[in-house]
Amino acid sequence: MSKKLWGGRFEKETDALVEKFTSSIDFDKKLYNQDIIGSIAHARMLAKCGIISKEDAAIIIKGLVEIKIEIEEGNFECTSKLEDIHMHIESRLHEKIGPVAGKLHTARSRNDQVALDMHMYVKEKIHETVGLLDTLAGVLWKLAEKHKNTVMPGYTHLQKAQPVTLATHLKAYYYMLQRDRERFSSALKGADIMPLGACALAGTTLPADREYTRELLGFSKIYENTMDAVSDRDFVMEFLSCASILMVHLSRMAEEIILWTTSEFNFIELDDAFATGSSIMPQKKNPDVLELIRGKSGRVFGNLMAMLTIMKGLPLAYNRDMQEDKEALFDTAETISACLEILPKVLVTMKVNKQNMARAVEDSFADATYFAEYLVKKGMPFRQAHEVVGKMVAYCIKKGKKIKDLSILEFKNFSDLFDEDVVVEERLPDEIINKNN
Amino acid sequence: MSKKLWGGRFEKETDALVEKFTSSIDFDKKLYNQDIIGSIAHARMLAKCGIISKEDAAIIIKGLVEIKIEIEEGNFECTSKLEDIHMHIESRLHEKIGPVAGKLHTARSRNDQVALDMHMYVKEKIHETVGLLDTLAGVLWKLAEKHKNTVMPGYTHLQKAQPVTLATHLKAYYYMLQRDRERFSSALKGADIMPLGACALAGTTLPADREYTRELLGFSKIYENTMDAVSDRDFVMEFLSCASILMVHLSRMAEEIILWTTSEFNFIELDDAFATGSSIMPQKKNPDVLELIRGKSGRVFGNLMAMLTIMKGLPLAYNRDMQEDKEALFDTAETISACLEILPKVLVTMKVNKQNMARAVEDSFADATYFAEYLVKKGMPFRQAHEVVGKMVAYCIKKGKKIKDLSILEFKNFSDLFDEDVVVEERLPDEIINKNN
Amino acid sequence: MSKKLWGGRFEKETDALVEKFTSSIDFDKKLYNQDIIGSIAHARMLAKCGIISKEDAAIIIKGLVEIKIEIEEGNFECTSKLEDIHMHIESRLHEKIGPVAGKLHTARSRNDQVALDMHMYVKEKIHETVGLLDTLAGVLWKLAEKHKNTVMPGYTHLQKAQPVTLATHLKAYYYMLQRDRERFSSALKGADIMPLGACALAGTTLPADREYTRELLGFSKIYENTMDAVSDRDFVMEFLSCASILMVHLSRMAEEIILWTTSEFNFIELDDAFATGSSIMPQKKNPDVLELIRGKSGRVFGNLMAMLTIMKGLPLAYNRDMQEDKEALFDTAETISACLEILPKVLVTMKVNKQNMARAVEDSFADATYFAEYLVKKGMPFRQAHEVVGKMVAYCIKKGKKIKDLSILEFKNFSDLFDEDVVVEERLPDEIINKNN
Amino acid sequence: MSKKLWGGRFEKETDALVEKFTSSIDFDKKLYNQDIIGSIAHARMLAKCGIISKEDAAIIIKGLVEIKIEIEEGNFECTSKLEDIHMHIESRLHEKIGPVAGKLHTARSRNDQVALDMHMYVKEKIHETVGLLDTLAGVLWKLAEKHKNTVMPGYTHLQKAQPVTLATHLKAYYYMLQRDRERFSSALKGADIMPLGACALAGTTLPADREYTRELLGFSKIYENTMDAVSDRDFVMEFLSCASILMVHLSRMAEEIILWTTSEFNFIELDDAFATGSSIMPQKKNPDVLELIRGKSGRVFGNLMAMLTIMKGLPLAYNRDMQEDKEALFDTAETISACLEILPKVLVTMKVNKQNMARAVEDSFADATYFAEYLVKKGMPFRQAHEVVGKMVAYCIKKGKKIKDLSILEFKNFSDLFDEDVVVEERLPDEIINKNN
Repeated sequence: MSKKLWGGRFEKETDALVEKFTSSIDFDKKLYNQDIIGSIAHARMLAKCGIISKEDAAIIIKGLVEIKIEIEEGNFECTSKLEDIHMHIESRLHEKIGPVAGKLHTARSRNDQVALDMHMYVKEKIHETVGLLDTLAGVLWKLAEKHKNTVMPGYTHLQKAQPVTLATHLKAYYYMLQRDRERFSSALKGADIMPLGACALAGTTLPADREYTRELLGFSKIYENTMDAVSDRDFVMEFLSCASILMVHLSRMAEEIILWTTSEFNFIELDDAFATGSSIMPQKKNPDVLELIRGKSGRVFGNLMAMLTIMKGLPLAYNRDMQEDKEALFDTAETISACLEILPKVLVTMKVNKQNMARAVEDSFADATYFAEYLVKKGMPFRQAHEVVGKMVAYCIKKGKKIKDLSILEFKNFSDLFDEDVVVEERLPDEIINKNN
Repeated sequence: MSKKLWGGRFEKETDALVEKFTSSIDFDKKLYNQDIIGSIAHARMLAKCGIISKEDAAIIIKGLVEIKIEIEEGNFECTSKLEDIHMHIESRLHEKIGPVAGKLHTARSRNDQVALDMHMYVKEKIHETVGLLDTLAGVLWKLAEKHKNTVMPGYTHLQKAQPVTLATHLKAYYYMLQRDRERFSSALKGADIMPLGACALAGTTLPADREYTRELLGFSKIYENTMDAVSDRDFVMEFLSCASILMVHLSRMAEEIILWTTSEFNFIELDDAFATGSSIMPQKKNPDVLELIRGKSGRVFGNLMAMLTIMKGLPLAYNRDMQEDKEALFDTAETISACLEILPKVLVTMKVNKQNMARAVEDSFADATYFAEYLVKKGMPFRQAHEVVGKMVAYCIKKGKKIKDLSILEFKNFSDLFDEDVVVEERLPDEIINKNN
Repeated sequence: MSKKLWGGRFEKETDALVEKFTSSIDFDKKLYNQDIIGSIAHARMLAKCGIISKEDAAIIIKGLVEIKIEIEEGNFECTSKLEDIHMHIESRLHEKIGPVAGKLHTARSRNDQVALDMHMYVKEKIHETVGLLDTLAGVLWKLAEKHKNTVMPGYTHLQKAQPVTLATHLKAYYYMLQRDRERFSSALKGADIMPLGACALAGTTLPADREYTRELLGFSKIYENTMDAVSDRDFVMEFLSCASILMVHLSRMAEEIILWTTSEFNFIELDDAFATGSSIMPQKKNPDVLELIRGKSGRVFGNLMAMLTIMKGLPLAYNRDMQEDKEALFDTAETISACLEILPKVLVTMKVNKQNMARAVEDSFADATYFAEYLVKKGMPFRQAHEVVGKMVAYCIKKGKKIKDLSILEFKNFSDLFDEDVVVEERLPDEIINKNN
Repeated sequence: MSKKLWGGRFEKETDALVEKFTSSIDFDKKLYNQDIIGSIAHARMLAKCGIISKEDAAIIIKGLVEIKIEIEEGNFECTSKLEDIHMHIESRLHEKIGPVAGKLHTARSRNDQVALDMHMYVKEKIHETVGLLDTLAGVLWKLAEKHKNTVMPGYTHLQKAQPVTLATHLKAYYYMLQRDRERFSSALKGADIMPLGACALAGTTLPADREYTRELLGFSKIYENTMDAVSDRDFVMEFLSCASILMVHLSRMAEEIILWTTSEFNFIELDDAFATGSSIMPQKKNPDVLELIRGKSGRVFGNLMAMLTIMKGLPLAYNRDMQEDKEALFDTAETISACLEILPKVLVTMKVNKQNMARAVEDSFADATYFAEYLVKKGMPFRQAHEVVGKMVAYCIKKGKKIKDLSILEFKNFSDLFDEDVVVEERLPDEIINKNN
């Protein structure tokens, strides 16, 4: 069946270069399962509506199931002669069951067929992503609970600002992932609409029953408008947007752990199994996994930009530009899955150097805010308290002291509001540790 | 009050170039209203919790209200000496009410203050956008209802494919906008969380009541984690993502109307009031508004790309990079509002050339699918029917005929399944017109 | 040799998931040839400098040549156990020649090795691209020369503006490609610098001779700074920038030909061999190749955005994020090559419908500027002439006439400056045809 | 002159919303100078060619010069009634000199006029940027020369790898800037082509002399093709590409200095005049300027993405989408100028903590490569030497020692090739310091 399925009017063969250029089989073969499941549902609907006979439907479905097995067992050959996965399956079906194969494509076009496959793929990937997000969030939460009393410096502008706990820090990421979860779940709505039945763009005059196919395939809704059904790639763009925001979060987490594993910070040591070495510098222990996660944000942002560019200004309905949606989507889905899979393992195996974290707080003026708020509690306007403590910090730097080590006299030199209690009071009371989880 | 509010420890004045480089007053003055409303709520909370006195709160609030009026009446001067809107208002408040102004900033930092302002801004803009989307969607629906029987060619690959109605075409956009509406509404969730109380990153030891402020400001939730509260810009990225997908839709609509207003398509004539002319070619009537809408997709995608880049790999908590979120957000919000405001007016005033649309269907083989489905109904497998009609089209092109004008003998030359009914039957029955709304 | 080359200090095996996650062999195997050629030159240099013996170098080089053949004959197996192409070749060399293989990596690190491979790849791809640009430009020029007298409407805002020739239109693209050529040639400078010898980041204390390796590998220059040598990906970003601007051009050309092949414009008919059909609409002849070219602009822009994002804010020197440079580069290079290869064939086989182009000029007021300039030549200020002809167009539209068909009396109603010569003069004199090539 | 210049055929006034939506005066007023200089040259050319009289030209030029002064002295009012700077100047000229003003626009259209202004703007900005690059590069070089012997750790993967000097590190940036300089200079070629004379898209039948205008305006070349002349925005995209790559460099430099100013690295202290403080944490000294530079990379990448999106798929010749080129360009040019202006001042005022840098080298195993190369010099294959030193590092970590402090016996336990000289030899010989500049 080397002749094109649409060759009726054409007098010349397609140029081999065109076949190669327009072929998508190399990447859209990933959709084989969605395609076959969709076709089976379509065949059942055609039979139910009397558009094809029950016997023909049975033959078609049997053939499709066999092809699925062939593919999964590696007994299926691809060729750029047959441009995409749909044509491959159709052609193989024709080989197996003869002309009755041609009946499967009644009341359907590749436009709604590929849209269906893409919707099914995105739905599956959203479910997968949400599952992986839950695992990672769970790991973060558990680690945070373990480190409720692990005090570390909190940073703004990468300068030590105020003491926090590692729990607070890790839970910040936990909450980011909760929003990611919610965003992906919202994106499900846009993916969970069935395009089948829109045919090329204008539906069909045949008595098809879209509701039945919808039910068989487990979609919540049907596209109300046939042109929209085949033109819409919102669900792809939305998935890529969610993925981009997720990658922002993962890149931030990666950046921080990379910083923490430097010998300068030395807050974290990665497990040997999750670090790599250097071919020339034997002493190195490199956070390659985290660097790659950080770098892969670029790939995902790029895919989003690609998809937006592709869709910009496209007239309705289907245009071949839209074939370019697939690689951007597949690559993104696989990238975020890979990142989400490996991160929990990095987190649970890494060693937290609590002493170094604690020492980093000691070595800083991260308790300055504490003393400012002390003055505020004694009645000083905050801005003034800020000025006073600012001067105390300058004084301490000159003297090589810490604020808490100042004598009560030195305190009083800066403000009469300082009382004995400023000295005896614990510098890091439980309230600080607990206030921000 | 030319001294910096944070100058306590510093021995040198800030360089004038630094002041200019870091200043955001030129653009963040847009947030004055959010800032003042937020400060009033904060002052009320401080008083309620006894952190400041009721009298001080009253003085502060009175001052803030006066500043709001000064700004709105144009009696407020900006200077890059005072880097941002928060400092401008604080400084003016100090001028008006003296040191008590310093008490307003107790238990608050610019980090949570600016985050609050941004949340409030995004919430307002989402409400505004949803309203504008509803108006545009309403106009599209009404226009579609008016053109339920206006037959026109449906295109795929910009080639005439099958007849549709203008109603179907317009409603495709209606449904896109419904999804935009849903997406923006989902994005509201991320914006509707109050960051105030997180202070710089670690909360406060003062007995603040975040729930009370939340209630006063009408937020649904409070950030559960203080570091997340000041580091989070998800709500900005999500708004920009929604805006980008919306601009994809608007750019597609713009592209189509631009095509339709060409003399080649000639489906649509823009109203004089919504078209522009040429300074050298008097005969031109240019769809500038639509071209700008199409082009403005670039600006919005660019803003999204900017924001993702800014946030990529940023360690927690606040970093000054995040100041760059504002212009991207403001420009996007204003761009989509402007596009959404003007489009309904373009649509209601444009003239639809029904005859040209109808003639375009006549001149095509857009009814070929119809004849293929005729054969399917008579029992031919679809792929075979497709081949047959393909040959009929090739034959017609050679003969300069249309399919519907073939004689029954000519029909039968292609397939015996063609009966007399193929000739008498109406080529564009009501079922076609109605099937795809 | 399953043990990692950098395993000395490590006590645990690398996790299998890490191996998979960090592996680049699936895509960087494309660099096998560059890698082997680079290694041969490096071995020769080591021997010349007496760092390794001549005999060892000979053994190493023989082994490398054999591996090259194995790869090219398909007798080389890849495994994600060995993360990248460099490790694959090194490991295979070890199998073939034993421990002497270990000497090849003296005075070299993977950091400068991979940088070398990438430079060589980009250099080759620039040469390839320039060749393909020349072919396409040549086809455009030849086609333009053939259509020096083919008059067609020139458009602004997609509205007919003034008559041009197809030659002028095609040559606009010719000149764009000339600029692309110049840009790619400029980009060669950045790629033509040899990083080898920088080792990991700090050079080596061994007496290596970088000048000799440079000469062997045909580079113009050596990186003067070792940290820059391994950190620099400017040449990749610049290649992607050039490719993005090129894709802007190709997307514009594609868009225009797509428009011209619509039945509405009907200026161009694609050859059957370079068009595709529809599986449901037998009458369709779709410009898929051109749509894909237009759509592929998204992919290339996305790759550029990915690369910029990856490099943003990376501290010196090598970071694993940079491994992400490869797929963006390879995909871009292959995409532009494929587009540039197929376009000339589309252009030379397509049929130009001259009559339709000519008729489109007739049917318009595209000659309005001509009459305005007539008045200017007679002394009227241009802005006034513009007003006058504007009114003439409005009059003609009402009367259903063309300007050139107005009587001399009608002409004179609009301005006394119109003389008899306005009527007899040819509407499209040669000067118009010739003025803008 | 509230009537539109192109109003001849139009029967209705432009809607006020359209005027506002399409107006560009708010941003394109930046081009006033380019516009006036271009118009003066055009007037001189028209007079020289006898298209207008010398007297008219003199009147026009005098009027234009006066308008330039009015604008520069702040005596010029803008209104969105007059959409852009061209119309503002034309309208004002009309007020000043009456109908003769209309003659200026002979043989010119806004399409080539605005293209001219943009070319002139880009040329100026390239010259400005190159100057600023030279200054920054000069500062880096001087600082590097001062720190030729300042040893610090060189990092890969942000892990200490091998010792380098601060000179090497700073010069890496110097060489990046040299490439930026070369890239901007290359971009000049694309900007240095004069579009004037292309008129709307098809040139003119009037006897204009483009060569003369070119000479007056100091352009190197003229666009050979009129449609290309008005459609081309390559020079803008290329400027934005160069700017994006530059911002990659600046963001990397910013990131590194931010890291170095942390208390953990403590390599650098910013001058008070170039740092900022915190409103709640008096002890903070924040690198805001550098954070903003890092963040501003997003804005510039976004502008590039915007511009590519705008141009993607635009049919020839001018489309109003192209008006969107301006803000992306202006914002980018101003952003890079501001960053390049402030960075030298940050660099020359910052304090380098040499002791801390030296100590950081001491505290690391950054000399491991040195010992591996020692073994190689004694004849061990590099890979084996790598293994040996790897085990030495593991041993040292357990024992809490540094490699250089091992006894000769301990050395020999790892390899017999270690001789007495390994102990006495200086750990950081001059050759290391000097090898990599």
